[in-house]
Amino acid sequence: MIGRLNHVAIAVPDLDAAAAQYRDTLGATVRPPQPEPDHGVTVVFIELPNTKIELLHPLGEGSPIAAFLAKNPAGGIHHICYEVDDILAARDRLKAAGARVLGDGEPKIGAHGKPVLFLHPKDFNGALVELEQA
Amino acid sequence: MIGRLNHVAIAVPDLDAAAAQYRDTLGATVRPPQPEPDHGVTVVFIELPNTKIELLHPLGEGSPIAAFLAKNPAGGIHHICYEVDDILAARDRLKAAGARVLGDGEPKIGAHGKPVLFLHPKDFNGALVELEQA
Repeated sequence: MIGRLNHVAIAVPDLDAAAAQYRDTLGATVRPPQPEPDHGVTVVFIELPNTKIELLHPLGEGSPIAAFLAKNPAGGIHHICYEVDDILAARDRLKAAGARVLGDGEPKIGAHGKPVLFLHPKDFNGALVELEQA
Repeated sequence: MIGRLNHVAIAVPDLDAAAAQYRDTLGATVRPPQPEPDHGVTVVFIELPNTKIELLHPLGEGSPIAAFLAKNPAGGIHHICYEVDDILAARDRLKAAGARVLGDGEPKIGAHGKPVLFLHPKDFNGALVELEQA
């Protein structure tokens, strides 16, 4: 069912410093900061040859990563995203297996303009898992 | 400098259950458990089309992930691994930029039989980063 690893998201306390580190110290291809007000984050995409790293920083009130950064002031790996072909079929298969889908269980349009769902970390070895319809 | 994302490692409290979940519920290609006594872990590789997930479980005394699981009993994303062409050149560039290399700073032979180094999470946005010479 799951396909490619679409991205690894890292919540960072200082987006400019983290982007500069990936560009200058780690020598990666770093895109400009992209505000995503609908998702409460500013994102910097790091393009690796086979996948992406997404640096996330809170934007506006009630950002979904504000609590994570309050608990992890240095930042941390926030979630991983797997691609699926059919997000509704994936959701139904996961729910049938007893996994909890966060929110109301309906896919939302994610930061890439595609339908996404998040799965409960307690059901996936403590890892927050995003599914994105590729 | 950094190339492909070689893998994402997830520490899990129950390796059989986690492997079964990735195989049966998430429908991924899951390899048999691989004991790595020299590294204090048993590893299950999940093969995705573009990268790997490594499920890690402690093996023997003094496992490097025992403390992580004690702190995160449900498990959690433990580290990410980037490939580099030349690990000594990468290390020297990182040290010159002020980043701390864990241990004695000399590459060790990792679970894939290739030279690896780990970088201090506090210097990389709270994320434990492994470098592997590809």
